[in-house]
Amino acid sequence: MRCPSLRAYLPGLLAVAVSLALAAPAGVQAAEGHSADVDPRIGTGGDGHTFPGATVPFGMIQLSPDTAMPDFKHAYKYAAGYQYGDGSLLGFSHTHFSGSGHSDMGDVLVMPMAGEVRLEPGDAAKPGSGYRSRFSHDTEVVQAGYYAVTLSDGGVRAELTAGRRIGWHRYTFPAGKPAHLLLDLRPSIYDYPGKVLWASLRVHDDGTVTGCRTTRGWAPGRELCFAMRFSQPMSSRTLYNRETDVVYKGFKGPGHQPEDRDAQSGRALEGVFDFGNLKQPLGVKVAISTVSEANAVANLDAEGQGWDFDARRAEARADWDKALASIDVEGSKDQRVGFYTSLYHALLSPTLSMDVNGQFRGPDGAVHEAVDKNGKFAFHSTWSLWDVYRAQQPLMALLMPERSTDFIRSLIASREASPFGILPVWAYQGLETWCMIGYHAVPVIADAYVKGVRGFDADAALKAMVASATYAPYGDLGDYMKLGYVPIDKEPEAASKTLEYAYDDWSLAQMAKAMGRKDIAATFDKRAGNWRNAYDPKTGFMRARKSDGAFREPFNPDTAGYGSDYTEGNAWQYSWYVPQDVAALVKAMGGDQRFVSKLDSVFDAKVDPSHFANVEDITGLIGWYAHGNEPSHHLAYLYDYAGAPWQTQKRLKQIMDSQYATRPDGLAGNDDLGQMSAWYIFTALGFYPVTPASDEYAIGRPFVARATLHLAGGKTFTVTADPLDDAHPYVGAVTLNGKPLNRVFLRHGELVAGGELHFTMQAEPNRAWGQAQGERPSSMSVSTTKVADASRKSDTKTAR
Amino acid sequence: MRCPSLRAYLPGLLAVAVSLALAAPAGVQAAEGHSADVDPRIGTGGDGHTFPGATVPFGMIQLSPDTAMPDFKHAYKYAAGYQYGDGSLLGFSHTHFSGSGHSDMGDVLVMPMAGEVRLEPGDAAKPGSGYRSRFSHDTEVVQAGYYAVTLSDGGVRAELTAGRRIGWHRYTFPAGKPAHLLLDLRPSIYDYPGKVLWASLRVHDDGTVTGCRTTRGWAPGRELCFAMRFSQPMSSRTLYNRETDVVYKGFKGPGHQPEDRDAQSGRALEGVFDFGNLKQPLGVKVAISTVSEANAVANLDAEGQGWDFDARRAEARADWDKALASIDVEGSKDQRVGFYTSLYHALLSPTLSMDVNGQFRGPDGAVHEAVDKNGKFAFHSTWSLWDVYRAQQPLMALLMPERSTDFIRSLIASREASPFGILPVWAYQGLETWCMIGYHAVPVIADAYVKGVRGFDADAALKAMVASATYAPYGDLGDYMKLGYVPIDKEPEAASKTLEYAYDDWSLAQMAKAMGRKDIAATFDKRAGNWRNAYDPKTGFMRARKSDGAFREPFNPDTAGYGSDYTEGNAWQYSWYVPQDVAALVKAMGGDQRFVSKLDSVFDAKVDPSHFANVEDITGLIGWYAHGNEPSHHLAYLYDYAGAPWQTQKRLKQIMDSQYATRPDGLAGNDDLGQMSAWYIFTALGFYPVTPASDEYAIGRPFVARATLHLAGGKTFTVTADPLDDAHPYVGAVTLNGKPLNRVFLRHGELVAGGELHFTMQAEPNRAWGQAQGERPSSMSVSTTKVADASRKSDTKTAR
Repeated sequence: MRCPSLRAYLPGLLAVAVSLALAAPAGVQAAEGHSADVDPRIGTGGDGHTFPGATVPFGMIQLSPDTAMPDFKHAYKYAAGYQYGDGSLLGFSHTHFSGSGHSDMGDVLVMPMAGEVRLEPGDAAKPGSGYRSRFSHDTEVVQAGYYAVTLSDGGVRAELTAGRRIGWHRYTFPAGKPAHLLLDLRPSIYDYPGKVLWASLRVHDDGTVTGCRTTRGWAPGRELCFAMRFSQPMSSRTLYNRETDVVYKGFKGPGHQPEDRDAQSGRALEGVFDFGNLKQPLGVKVAISTVSEANAVANLDAEGQGWDFDARRAEARADWDKALASIDVEGSKDQRVGFYTSLYHALLSPTLSMDVNGQFRGPDGAVHEAVDKNGKFAFHSTWSLWDVYRAQQPLMALLMPERSTDFIRSLIASREASPFGILPVWAYQGLETWCMIGYHAVPVIADAYVKGVRGFDADAALKAMVASATYAPYGDLGDYMKLGYVPIDKEPEAASKTLEYAYDDWSLAQMAKAMGRKDIAATFDKRAGNWRNAYDPKTGFMRARKSDGAFREPFNPDTAGYGSDYTEGNAWQYSWYVPQDVAALVKAMGGDQRFVSKLDSVFDAKVDPSHFANVEDITGLIGWYAHGNEPSHHLAYLYDYAGAPWQTQKRLKQIMDSQYATRPDGLAGNDDLGQMSAWYIFTALGFYPVTPASDEYAIGRPFVARATLHLAGGKTFTVTADPLDDAHPYVGAVTLNGKPLNRVFLRHGELVAGGELHFTMQAEPNRAWGQAQGERPSSMSVSTTKVADASRKSDTKTAR
Repeated sequence: MRCPSLRAYLPGLLAVAVSLALAAPAGVQAAEGHSADVDPRIGTGGDGHTFPGATVPFGMIQLSPDTAMPDFKHAYKYAAGYQYGDGSLLGFSHTHFSGSGHSDMGDVLVMPMAGEVRLEPGDAAKPGSGYRSRFSHDTEVVQAGYYAVTLSDGGVRAELTAGRRIGWHRYTFPAGKPAHLLLDLRPSIYDYPGKVLWASLRVHDDGTVTGCRTTRGWAPGRELCFAMRFSQPMSSRTLYNRETDVVYKGFKGPGHQPEDRDAQSGRALEGVFDFGNLKQPLGVKVAISTVSEANAVANLDAEGQGWDFDARRAEARADWDKALASIDVEGSKDQRVGFYTSLYHALLSPTLSMDVNGQFRGPDGAVHEAVDKNGKFAFHSTWSLWDVYRAQQPLMALLMPERSTDFIRSLIASREASPFGILPVWAYQGLETWCMIGYHAVPVIADAYVKGVRGFDADAALKAMVASATYAPYGDLGDYMKLGYVPIDKEPEAASKTLEYAYDDWSLAQMAKAMGRKDIAATFDKRAGNWRNAYDPKTGFMRARKSDGAFREPFNPDTAGYGSDYTEGNAWQYSWYVPQDVAALVKAMGGDQRFVSKLDSVFDAKVDPSHFANVEDITGLIGWYAHGNEPSHHLAYLYDYAGAPWQTQKRLKQIMDSQYATRPDGLAGNDDLGQMSAWYIFTALGFYPVTPASDEYAIGRPFVARATLHLAGGKTFTVTADPLDDAHPYVGAVTLNGKPLNRVFLRHGELVAGGELHFTMQAEPNRAWGQAQGERPSSMSVSTTKVADASRKSDTKTAR
């Protein structure tokens, strides 16, 4: 996804088609866990927008190298600060999004310098013109929780690792040259003049450096504070206020303000910290806080004891090994790297956004305490909800229900601190960006609840969900509630909004039903049918109506993008968005045959790739199918619902073969905070949550020979496939716990109960399997899964 | 004073010479206290820079009408937002300085509107062109704690009163017109484009309106939050984000952000709250907080119960009556109004800057708790220290030692939260502006300590004082410590700095002595002699030296202003600045006769008033003597030190007659947070603290026939003068407790012990009185006053 409120700028993407020899990562390794199969380089080229730097699962810090932070008109490819094709680095900053379309962050940028001090980054085309340094990928070590590179200009070896709230640097300077560390509080990702509203910088008596910066970015008025310590004493330091165009100099009277000493405030601050000729590497630890400098210091104190970088690195790797151990996969190195890098990417959001004392910044800009009626919890933010409600959050509910509990408590806490009284739409660091459409926090919560996740205040959740579903000013929900659809003359992208609201409505009804709240369930069950108001039987497409009830003319199903009826898509892509009642959609579209044939026409269309040149997110094309963006993600599985599961199997192989690769440019589109990767994981396992908030998973076909899911309560669920090769792309038969499974779907309860799912693969389609209505997934009858207290085993203790 | 770091702009002052018939204030009067003799109009015309609005003693809120908030190049006359000569009002804002030279504030500006809604103030020259309204002084009621005016355009009657942390409005709308209240978060005092860095505005479900605004003003990066409630429910409301020139619109995507509803953030916010046709007046209560919206709400809750405006008004008046009751003065109405309005003005700073929960914002921008080793205290800010250390703070130490304790604990707390580790220079709302010179928090503390004020941590105070006296980067203290003077080639206004540092040094030594810290006393006693390094015996003036030791040439004693050797003064004014050792100065200047004759030449000089046209603060001229600015304030009393007390008496009458009047333009210069007024009070009582941190008061002559000071421990000290008229301007004889007093000074201990001081006035000078060395004030021998626990009776309970 990419925030549609922004006009499309030149994508300007250089296709990075570098093939990597994927050597096993070198260096310190605490244990031979699955981290060995993670390659964070994947997605750092092309449109993936992932970052290669160091972080821990759901960590507050994502410490990563930045190759550029250009003006936001040219920033799309730099959404994560790093592009694999670049040859020089700007520095290392502490906050990033993994795979976002729009972006921000790049906070607390530091750069080591040996010898001469430079205060400007200089021109990438003119090496040596500033503090920017060239580097070679040959010198990079890119692992889960660790990143290293040699800066050719100056010869500094840079190493990064991370804790939950700290970034940890180790810089080895060449002998004989004075060592400096530059801190530049001016640039940020998706930069523009005036973005920094205010900043402060201070050196304390004990050598701790603290500061805050308020930016007017994706989340306007975002303040981020930090605390930084060095392993060596500074020999000197200078704090710069580099703003030149100051209208009001009243407070800068000569001789009055002690300048360049212990503290500075302003809009363009830099600090240079000098260490002389170091005999040993310089350690740097940085903690951040969305609340205050004091909290940043407390966060630093909590995690930042001692200077054993290697120990911290090993701990970060162990954190990853532990998280990745939830699934054991057997397969080739390439399969394992594809799978575990996807799992790694799927565990990067939502991120911890709370200080060690339990305080967090809410969407009201105020400071709150992460305590609800069930006690303390770990507040998380970074909610790319339009994306992650589809598969990434369902994956969490399946693999890590105790994390889901924290996530949902965080959503409820956000709602309670919202000036609008609604759940997050696209939030990070606690703040709202209003990016994308729908109210998809609701299916995240409903899905978890239906799947047995507990430990949160369900009544408060339901209240929050209803509030979000009925807040009239948001995305024209007001007219939607009156008319049963969003009118295109009042609100852009109205067809997409009507469809997504209807699904969100349905998900709300599921939760209400499961809680025995029939009144609420009835209201939203009725709203769930609003997708019909978007369907035009004449053209066979979902379309936008005007306030007067007529469809907007002229209509061209090929047209996409802002100003169209759709959000980041066109009629070919959006007309399938009825996950809550695919059977009814099949019927509306004229039955199985016509449905299948129309779906085929999406995949098989001849589409000029330049068609979407102005809509950056529509990438990864197979005909009109766009795997690079989320509205297409469930399409391949829809054949299951029309009695053609072999077509699902065929399309999945097409997608897996063409849209994922273990190369930097191996993601077909923005990873979108793990949604692209979660799709990969489910699909590789052989099933997918087409309809979150139902307990069904549509069965596709596995792409690994054997996978074991380690689930709550010590249960394991194993998927095997035989033979798994290109010659046997179709499912011949499926057994669940040794018994033939005639259905093309699984229930959540079957997974969490533990068991074995075996796929017999064959060369030709099995056209007899999953034909009867009861054998197809339906979503319409949901049974709430009973999970034995899995989510009550809260990890609050470790997360906090 | 006025911050010298700003170049002088066109004063552009219209001399307002309106003579007011001072009728007794009408309206509610809780008791016939001294409030009846307060006229807050005094100083609102001309250069006084006081505000006419409603406040309580040392209140956090100063709710006052603003007639203009022009660009800071034209803002000097609008330092308090209101100029008596203006005919229209912009609105009512909640924060002001009383009598500052430079300025800021004007936060949370509200304006009632009847009928049509206007969002722009419009042009004062074009009535009806905006929300600005004309008014007539005839409709004003201006009292301690109460202000009322009728807005001619629209016919709304506006009334204001205040609590410690709340401003309370009552608006009576004309019948039949819909009532609106506008909140404009854009303008502020000393305005300029870009001053508002960020703001937020929110309407809560219960109708409470909250918000914050961060400005880049005198104190850069100052955030002020507020909470507002109405006595009537809103019928509707609109929140506007009026910024047009937004580079980055990413977060303003159409259809995404619910606009104009419950919350807004941005740089140009306005809110309009609609109440329909009201049958009763609209009550509005506003609380502020430097910490957070939540704290503002808590402040509102703490003081803002119910809607009885008249009760709050009576309470505010009672607060004033109580504070003003510390001195009972008998005299004509004009004398009483002059006196009590001065006392009123002297009780407007420092202001409470702490929320009801004890939190305050410190100079580090962080939130702190007002607790020290002696327990909780009330944190105060608004420290115009260059001014108030002279007489206003000594007045507090005399009249309200328990307040002094809180003030000093606040200074120490500020220092402990300072990134520079030093005491405030010119601070407000906890933040530092670096305005003016010297480190005059030190004499404030030393004076209080020497005068027996206790209840603060004296060790912490001394540590803070030494830190401030030795912080090399501040005002070139580094060179001062090395050379014994501030070199003019390194630092502007070097002569003034050398002189003021030397006095501050001496005051520090007094405190150290009183604490038995001989080491520190010796160091600073030595530094106290540095005034000699500024004295040029050849010219007889204080001058600035260069680093090489030579005085800077060319030298012209008439030259003043930025770039000169002096701060807001010239050699005629600054050459007398050795309050710590006037006897030595007399000697250096050639003995009594030459000293007196030179002093006379200051007062009797013929000076073209346009001479200081470019130095706004040098006003109130009598020759070179400039009563409108502080460096002159002790001059008239210096004759006492040279055996010519009758000349002191003569000059005081000259000053009192020409520089004060009970008219809007009755102050000769900026009141400077009560310093001008405190000079008046001491002088009217017959004595003045020429040397704060000594226990001496130089005796002048009284200007009231009888005054009784109600001091700590129930003691009273009465001053009488007979006959007190223009025909008897000289002191004939003085008795203290019935015994003749041959000295021309009093000791602090004599005052606080209680007693009677009687002046026999006569037509001709008594040239025999106060001639001997022991009869003259000297400052050099100080005995620390023993005050029986007066200051230990902390008013923390009420102040918090």
